[in-house]
Order: sequence, then C-alpha cells, then structure tokens
Amino acid sequence: MINITLPDGSVKQVEKGTSSMDIAKSISEGLARKVLAATVNGIVFDANRPINEDATLKLLTWNDTDGQMTFWHSSAHLMAEAVESMFPGVKFWVGPPLDNPKGFYYDMDLGDRKMTEDDLAALEKKMNELAKQQNVFSRKEMSKADAVKYFTEKGDEYKLDLLQNLNDGEITFYTQGNFTDLCRGPHIPNTGFIKAIKLTNIAGAYWKGDEKNKQLTRVYGVTFPSQKEMDEHLAMLEEAKKRDHRKLGKELGIYTMDDQVGPGLILWMPNGGVIIEELEKLAKESEQAAGYKRVVTPHIAKESMYLTSGHLPYYADSMFPPMEMDGDRYYLRAMNCPHHHKIFDAELRSYKDLPLRLAEYGTCYRYEQSGELFGLMRVRCLHMNDAHIYCSKEQFAQEFKAVNDLYLKYFKIFGIEKYVMRLSLHDPEKLGQKYVNEPELWKETEELVRNVLIETGVPFVEVKGEGAFYGPKIDVQIWSAIGREFTLATNQVDFAQSRSFNLTFTNAQNEKEIPLIIHRAPLGTHERFIGFLLEHYAGKFPMWLAPVQVKVLPISDKFVDYAKAVSDKLKNADIRAEVDDRNEKIGKKIRDTEMMKVPYMLVVGEKEMNENKVAVRRQGKGDIGLKSIDEFMNEAVAEIKERRAE
Amino acid sequence: MINITLPDGSVKQVEKGTSSMDIAKSISEGLARKVLAATVNGIVFDANRPINEDATLKLLTWNDTDGQMTFWHSSAHLMAEAVESMFPGVKFWVGPPLDNPKGFYYDMDLGDRKMTEDDLAALEKKMNELAKQQNVFSRKEMSKADAVKYFTEKGDEYKLDLLQNLNDGEITFYTQGNFTDLCRGPHIPNTGFIKAIKLTNIAGAYWKGDEKNKQLTRVYGVTFPSQKEMDEHLAMLEEAKKRDHRKLGKELGIYTMDDQVGPGLILWMPNGGVIIEELEKLAKESEQAAGYKRVVTPHIAKESMYLTSGHLPYYADSMFPPMEMDGDRYYLRAMNCPHHHKIFDAELRSYKDLPLRLAEYGTCYRYEQSGELFGLMRVRCLHMNDAHIYCSKEQFAQEFKAVNDLYLKYFKIFGIEKYVMRLSLHDPEKLGQKYVNEPELWKETEELVRNVLIETGVPFVEVKGEGAFYGPKIDVQIWSAIGREFTLATNQVDFAQSRSFNLTFTNAQNEKEIPLIIHRAPLGTHERFIGFLLEHYAGKFPMWLAPVQVKVLPISDKFVDYAKAVSDKLKNADIRAEVDDRNEKIGKKIRDTEMMKVPYMLVVGEKEMNENKVAVRRQGKGDIGLKSIDEFMNEAVAEIKERRAE
Repeated sequence: MINITLPDGSVKQVEKGTSSMDIAKSISEGLARKVLAATVNGIVFDANRPINEDATLKLLTWNDTDGQMTFWHSSAHLMAEAVESMFPGVKFWVGPPLDNPKGFYYDMDLGDRKMTEDDLAALEKKMNELAKQQNVFSRKEMSKADAVKYFTEKGDEYKLDLLQNLNDGEITFYTQGNFTDLCRGPHIPNTGFIKAIKLTNIAGAYWKGDEKNKQLTRVYGVTFPSQKEMDEHLAMLEEAKKRDHRKLGKELGIYTMDDQVGPGLILWMPNGGVIIEELEKLAKESEQAAGYKRVVTPHIAKESMYLTSGHLPYYADSMFPPMEMDGDRYYLRAMNCPHHHKIFDAELRSYKDLPLRLAEYGTCYRYEQSGELFGLMRVRCLHMNDAHIYCSKEQFAQEFKAVNDLYLKYFKIFGIEKYVMRLSLHDPEKLGQKYVNEPELWKETEELVRNVLIETGVPFVEVKGEGAFYGPKIDVQIWSAIGREFTLATNQVDFAQSRSFNLTFTNAQNEKEIPLIIHRAPLGTHERFIGFLLEHYAGKFPMWLAPVQVKVLPISDKFVDYAKAVSDKLKNADIRAEVDDRNEKIGKKIRDTEMMKVPYMLVVGEKEMNENKVAVRRQGKGDIGLKSIDEFMNEAVAEIKERRAE
Repeated sequence: MINITLPDGSVKQVEKGTSSMDIAKSISEGLARKVLAATVNGIVFDANRPINEDATLKLLTWNDTDGQMTFWHSSAHLMAEAVESMFPGVKFWVGPPLDNPKGFYYDMDLGDRKMTEDDLAALEKKMNELAKQQNVFSRKEMSKADAVKYFTEKGDEYKLDLLQNLNDGEITFYTQGNFTDLCRGPHIPNTGFIKAIKLTNIAGAYWKGDEKNKQLTRVYGVTFPSQKEMDEHLAMLEEAKKRDHRKLGKELGIYTMDDQVGPGLILWMPNGGVIIEELEKLAKESEQAAGYKRVVTPHIAKESMYLTSGHLPYYADSMFPPMEMDGDRYYLRAMNCPHHHKIFDAELRSYKDLPLRLAEYGTCYRYEQSGELFGLMRVRCLHMNDAHIYCSKEQFAQEFKAVNDLYLKYFKIFGIEKYVMRLSLHDPEKLGQKYVNEPELWKETEELVRNVLIETGVPFVEVKGEGAFYGPKIDVQIWSAIGREFTLATNQVDFAQSRSFNLTFTNAQNEKEIPLIIHRAPLGTHERFIGFLLEHYAGKFPMWLAPVQVKVLPISDKFVDYAKAVSDKLKNADIRAEVDDRNEKIGKKIRDTEMMKVPYMLVVGEKEMNENKVAVRRQGKGDIGLKSIDEFMNEAVAEIKERRAE
C-alpha cells in the first residue's frame, strides 16, 4: 500500500500501482471524465500511469495550464496519426503544445509531396474519426538500443537525431491507434477527450530553426474538449483581429513608425500623447500618495556601470551596441536600476531615509531581433513605469504589500478582472550557481512575498527554479476583456545589486547595513500597456483616457458658433472637446465620430441653441437625452475625475 | 560739408573731418564727457577720428555693449603700458575685451621673469597713475613695410606673426603715453575715462591655444568709469559665488553626477525632480491652453534621417558617435525636430489641420568637449521645452506672436525683469551660400518677426548676417536677479526643413503647399533654466517650485503627533509638507530648515496644539504670526496655485 496526499491535505491509502485515473474514479465518475493528466510529486504524469510510491497528487483538468498543454500535445500526436494515414512515409520532427497562440504544431518532412490548405479539411475529418475511436495513449519504456533499431529500420533520421541526446532509462514511446512516436509524454487517457478540432495554418520551418537546414512543413492546430469552447475561442480570435492594436493604433491616430527612425521605435502621435499623459498622471498621483520621490536620469552610461551591475557582458545581446567616445564606451540603458542606485549612493543614507522609493517613467532601449518586433508588444524603445524601493528587511513586507495594493488599484481602474501573479522561486540545489548563495535571505523573502500574496488574496502560482539570479521574481499576468493573456510587468526582490554597487545605510544601531531593493513597474511599459488597452477596450477608451472626450456636432453652419461656445466652456473645465465644423450632414458627422470612438457627442441645432442645451449621445449607446450644458459638464467632469470605467 | 544723421533721424551739417566727439560737444559738454566711441555707418570708430563722408552716427557710452568693449580694450592697452614700465622687454600677443566674465585680458611673454599675484597691486597702482594722466589714444595708419620694420627692430615675433595676416591699408598703430601697439582699434578718447581698476587673475595660456607652443602669461582685469560701478560689479561677483548653481545644487539636493554614468550627464535627485515636474506642469498647462498637442518620440534615429535633415555631416561634431546595428548607423538625437516632422508627415495634412503645434519635453544628446562641460550650463544630455509649429505664411505672424506671449508670461512668473530678443537676420549678399536662396521669404518673415516684436513692445536688437541657414533666428537673453546674462533659448523660423522632408499640406485651393515651421523652446532646457533659477532665486525658490514647501517643526517629542496631523492635512491639499521629528532643539531645526530654504516653517508646541494653530515663519523673514491650520492652508494653496513670486 502507498499513501497518496491530495491537495486538500487528505491522505488516501491505495495499492501500489494504482493510477491517478483510478483514484479519480474512486472520488467520482464525473471527475474522472474530466481528468486529462495528473501531477505526481510535482511531475506531470499520464492519468493511466501506475503510481508506485508515496506521493502528493494533483489531478489535472482543462482548468489547469498543464492539463491544456497535455491535451494539445496529445492533439499533435492525433494530427500526426491522421497525416501519416494520408501521407504514408512522412517523417516527424517535434510537435509541442503552445500557450500563445493556443494549440499545437507538428513539424514534418513530407518528402517530395506538398500539403495545401485544402488538405487541412480532410485531415480534420480524419482526426475526428480517430478521436471518436477513443484510442488509448499507451506508454512504453524502451532501451536506447531498441529505440535506435526501431527508427533505423523505419529510416527516420529525425527521431534518430533526437535519440542522440537521450540516455537509457529516459526513453519512452507512446502509441495511440496506428501511430507510435518517440515521446517523453505525458498524454491524455485517450483520443476521445478531443471533441473539437481546427487546423489553422501551414507554414515552412527550417529544421532546428537553422536556415542552412532543410525546410520542414509546420502544421498548426487547436483542439478543445467541447465544440462550445472551440466556438468561443474562434470568436475570441475573430474579435482579437478587430481589436488588433496595430489596426486600431493607426485608425485612432495613436502611434506610427517610420523607416528613417527605425524599426521598433514608436512615434507617439497626439492621441497617443494624451493617453501617455493620462497614464503618467495616474502613476504620479498614485506614487506621490504612496510616498515615492521622482528622479530624472539620462538614458546612457559608461560601460563601467554595466560591468558593476553585471548586465555586461551577460545581457549584452539585449542591449544596443556601444558608442565610443572620449576613450570610453557608452551604452543606451536597457534598465533604469543602476542610475537609481547612483542616486541612492549620492548621499549618506540612514535608516531614517528608508524606505526610499525612487520613481521615474524611465525610457529604456533593448535590442530585439527585427523579426521579433511586433507593433507595440515587442519594441526597442520602452517607457517604463519604473521605481526602485530601498528598504530594510523589517520594512520589506509592508513595502511589498503596498506595491501589491498599487497593482490592485490599477486593475480596478482598468477593469482587469482576471490576473495572476506568478511567483518564481529559487532552487535550493542551485544556490551559488544559478542563485545568489544566501539561503536564509531566499527563504525569508520568499516567505514574506508568499505571505503578502496570501494576505491580500491575490491569485498566485508558485514556480520553483525560475527566480532571478538575485531574488524572487513575480510576473504579473493579466487577461484582456476578450480573454487574451498578457504579461504586464515583473516585480523583483533584489539582494544582489546593493552588494555590487556597495549600497549601504546606517541602521539605528549605527552599523552599516545593506538595503533590500524592490524593482517594480505596475503599469508595465507605455508600449505594452497601451497595446493591451487598445485590445481590452476595443479602442473605446473610458472618458478619462479618451484622446478626444467630447465632440460637438452642429447640425448646420448656423450653429457652429454655438457649438464653439459649448466646446470652449468644456475646455475651460479641462475637458478635451472639439467641434466638427465640417460642411457635412449630421449623420456623417455622427458616424465619423463613432468611428473615432469619442465617448460623447453633443448634437446642437436650433432647439439646443435656444434652450442653451445639448443633445447628448454616448458612444455605442446612441441618444441619451437633452441636457443643459452645465448638467452635462458637471457629469462629465465627475466621470473624468473618478476615472470611471463607463 | 557732410551730412550726419543722428539716431532720432535729425541731420546735422558739419565740416568734413569733424569727429564724433566734436559733434557730441556741440550737443552738450555733459554728453561729451560720457562718449567712449561712436558707430559711424555701422562701424565702431574712435570718438576722435575724423568723419570724412555723409554718415549715420550713434554715439556710444557706457550703456552700449560696444562702448564697454571699447573701454575694456583700451584698458588692456593701459595695463600693457603699466606692464611694460615694470617688465621692460615684455612682448605682447593679443588683449581682447571680454563679455563674460566682464573685463579684458592681455597675453604676454615675460621672458625668464615671472609675474606673481603680488605684482598685480603694483600694476594697478601704475595703471591708476597713467589713467590720471589722461593720455590720448592716438591712431596712426601704417604701411605693412613700416610696421614690419618697426617690430623687426623691436624683435617682437608675436606682432610680426599678427602682421602676416594683415594687408596694406588695414594696418593701424595706437599710442597712448609711452605705449604703442599694433591694433585695429577703436579706443576711448583718453585714459582718464578709466576711473576704477582691478586686476583679477594671472593664468598661463598657450600661444594660439596650442599646447605645443610656448606658454604665455595671461593677466585678467576689469575696469569701470566710476568706483561705484566697480563696487557694484565686485559685489555682484561675490553674490554670484554664493549663488553658484553647482554649490546650491549640491546643498539643496537638486542634482548630482557620477563617474560611471559619465561627465555632463545630470542625475536629477528628488528635489530636482520636483522642480522639473513643476516646470513641465507649467509648460503643459500653458501649451495646452495655447492649442499645442503633445507627442512622444524616441531619442534615436537612423543616420538616413539626419542626412535628410542636413544635420549630418555638418553637425556631426556636436552629435554623439553612432551605434552600428543591423547594418545601419543609429544616432542619439541632438534635436527633436526631425522626429516631429515625421509625425507631421504620418498623415495627409490639410489647411484645416494647421497650425499644427507639436510639443514634447524632448531629451537631446549633444557632444561637448569634456573641458567645455560646466555644471548645469554646459551638459551633454538636455531636456528641452521643445515644440514645432507648422503653419501657413498667413498664420505665421499670429503664431509667432503667441510664442512671444508665452515668453512674456514666463518672464512674469519667474520675475525676469531684464530680457532682450536678439533678432539675427540674413545677409542678402550671401543668399544661396550661407542662407537659403529665398530672398522674398527672408524679407517677408524678417518683416513679420520685426513687426511682432515692435507690436508687443519686447526689447530687441537686430544683427545682420547671423541668421540660421534656413531662416531668421531669435536668441533670447535674460538677466538674473544679480544682473548676470544668460542665453535662455533660441527661436527659429524655418523654411528649409519642410522642403528637405517633403512636408506639405493641401491648401484651401486644393493645392499642395509647403508649411513654415517655427522652432521654439521658451523655457530652454531644464539644465540651463534650473541652473539660472538657482542663481536667480539664490536657491530660495518661490513656494510653487520649492521641493519642500512647508516644514512642520514640533518643539519637542510631545508634539510630533500633532505636527504629523498638520503635515498630513497639508499633504492632502497637495502641499509638499514634511515634519522634522528629529530629537533636536527648535533653534537647530529652524536653522537647518532655513539652510534648505524651505518657504514656510510651522512651529508647533503646547499653545499651538491646544488652539489647533501653527506659528508661521517665512523663509528669510522670520515669525509672521499664529494662524489656524485652515487659514495657513488656504493661503498656501492660493500662493501655490497662483505661482506667486512671494
């Protein structure tokens, strides 16, 4: 008998060799129908695989990322089976699941044949047939010799290549239906779990990503455990296309790029400038209330500083090349921290100065391969909502909690309902190699961070062995209104840079002490965050962020003066108002203003002018009635001031 | 007889050969006593020099820059006479007048002898003796052959060197007392005008500034037409030393620099960050009210853009060296204009979009020799209050006037009482060489600018032949509270860059038209302007700019809680308040707060706490009485909101 500990802490005694699926069934048949795989002692296992020792067990369903990954990886095998049946002799390379875009692909060598878009429908049909057969994914351990023999006989140079890097004892084969593959697994119990299938795309991909190698065929697909989820997914993709920040960014005059300036370098146009200004105002207000102090530092520094910080040479590939000047090398900064450390270090610091919170909307430059650049999401010039908090160990928990509160405040303002903090921890076995050798500090700060996350009730997951070199790291994941995931920002707890830069403060006992540093940027970068907001709001920014907040539309030339008087009055109340004084029909004016997603339209004609009123239209809602100018103005001012969502 | 036209337009008929001094005497003996030189047909002449043709005449006194320059140049000759009497055989190189620091120097070769600080007093004494002799500066034209003969016999290789570059007809000698010098002149009538003399400094200076040459002795001095002016000048220098922005910048925690970041790269510390934030707020408010739109652009661009703009290769020496990336060269920008032009060009523009005013507190990088760097005044990274106005010719005058009004608004806010716009014009003879060959546009825009300056009553001077390549240029000179001159900013009218960048708009006649561009930066750069303000205010910033506005000083620990309550209340009203909760005597707290030049101190003890009041002290003024918290707060809020001088 072995002991199985479930996530709620309860322990089940079962026979050695019992599978996760058996345990699921013993709990409920309904649950068993949803189990895709399981985590056994932290490792993802096939649900059918026997457990042979005491273990902690977590059953994985579609609600778990690992469950989805297993599902899609199995779907890749299912696709491979269909491909092999239609293209006999095909050879496969690798077929991983994907998080973004969701789904999977498989790279394959079709020999002289070509796969076309037309083949995809037939493949989908075949996959559906094979899925319905509920073929079990069965796992078999193999000796390296047997595995090599198998693929040598098959003449499959790709799998033989994979085998070169594998050792006896770690080689497994998976078979479902007529298809067998060298695979580490795990897989879902059987193909029947796959209820909805869509092959999305065929592309070319060089073997091992090297353009000197042969070009393989890469087929992308996505699958779901129900048609409903597939429909929702496809609708979301369709909506995402409409909300594409590159399309909206151009239509709404948010940003542009220019060949002579260079790729990945955003030119923020006036409408983008307004959004930036409003975001910075929000950040500055919030940070001032939270006791931050603003600094302003240059975008360059000598090589020597980045040698001290350790960014050179390790991070050099992500930095712009140096400028040689006066016998020195100067670098554009890829991060603001070292400049802030210099300001910390410019004066003698005592415990009375701590926590010192230095904030700057600092601009950084990072080198991304030109092929990696993507709209506002992957750029080379980033405006970062940055700050560094220098504090004592005793102050850390409170400071970290305050940072967390700032995130929650922002999530509320922007209507971000789904978010997760991904807490990356160190791996005790790699202390001194991958991680600063301060086991006590690691334990202490990880525990502090974990407690704060628990206390504030923020959803979070822990990931062992993914912390930064100098301390635990928290990646903040957010989901847009249409359910797409974005990485917003990263917080870092840092015990190393204070040491590299020799930063100290005098504590109450009159001793030198090394401060902890929190790196934080709750609004991320303007580039990524405004890209996110464009999708999140579909360009329909809430009033306070809208580049133009109110458009006054005279129904004919006769009312242009009145329209201007209304607009001037609103402008005096700091409302961004404009008049559409074009010689156009009112219908066209309304349509054009809707297109630009201006929150309010005020239509003015004879009646409105005589009564000193405006006919108010809300973006996307149509007419909401006649109001006096003052009434509208007061409501608008309140909506802006409260940063109301709508 | 010849006709002499005076500045008021009146014409005097005088005999040929009459001197300016004769004319001055004919007007009044009082005037004649003040005349140092004269401008005859635009050229500065000795007051004693005969006028031989019809001329416009301007008599120069101590109130004219050219008058002062003539005075100091003559003082250099006077010093040379004194030196020659004490160091026989001395050879002189050049002895120019200086604008900043005011005065003059003379470079000399003393052979084996050395001049010490002790010699300066003796020299001053000798100069005073010689001045009292009222020796006339007499001018004599010389042939080159005679001049060479004279200095060859004297064995003076320095003057012989100067003669090499002079031609017959342009060689003159000046003699006063026992001293004769090769000199273009002009000079003051006689040495008696020099009533106050101070030799300030001895320095080494390589001949012709080349360190491979012999080192000469450079003696600096300054002279005045009265002891009163000398005293005022020395007091101003003394005060300027106290107000040195580098000293105050450090004491008040405004900025720092760091070796690892690099020279000329300012790190703005929290107190400097506050001032920057307030200046930007002022600029943004003013610019929004004036219809500007804000943009945000990167600090780099490809070489290609600066070839289009013409900044490369002509301006390359003032730019940072390039970064080689992806087969391109990228440059840190030295100016923001090309980026803004790209935003103008990102959309089709019609006359309805104009004037388009694009504003950005853009950061630029300029290479200055490390020896030229000086505190905040000469730096390598500049935050510029920049904007570019794209307008039609018809809109130009109004736009230029609006820019002018912005300057006047700022001068008022900052209590800048003395300012001059220096209007640099083109030289019609150099059209097509030094100046864009658009004679009509030059005439038109120069006339428009001139008219605006006249209309607004702004003091201005015109300088022919100093315009920029692409249009007239206006340098704005301001004087600090202690009378030191600073160049604040430069406005430019530009007809060339629209052409280089192919910028056009569709006019009302549906034709393509090229916009005019106004470059303007009324607040200059943060670096220079804050440097100026530090001197101007002696660090005692007006309330709205002060990094800490109010310091609450509890007279003992018992009142710290009350002090914090007061401070919190003020903070809620957006007042930058702090509590001095140190365990120090109240006298020390007050002294320390005075040192940091905090505008208000609120002293709180038993009485204040019981009555819910504060004892108010104004920086530099002492106690101004007991007030209720609300009363003080309301006054403070008003003082800040109105940006009151004090």
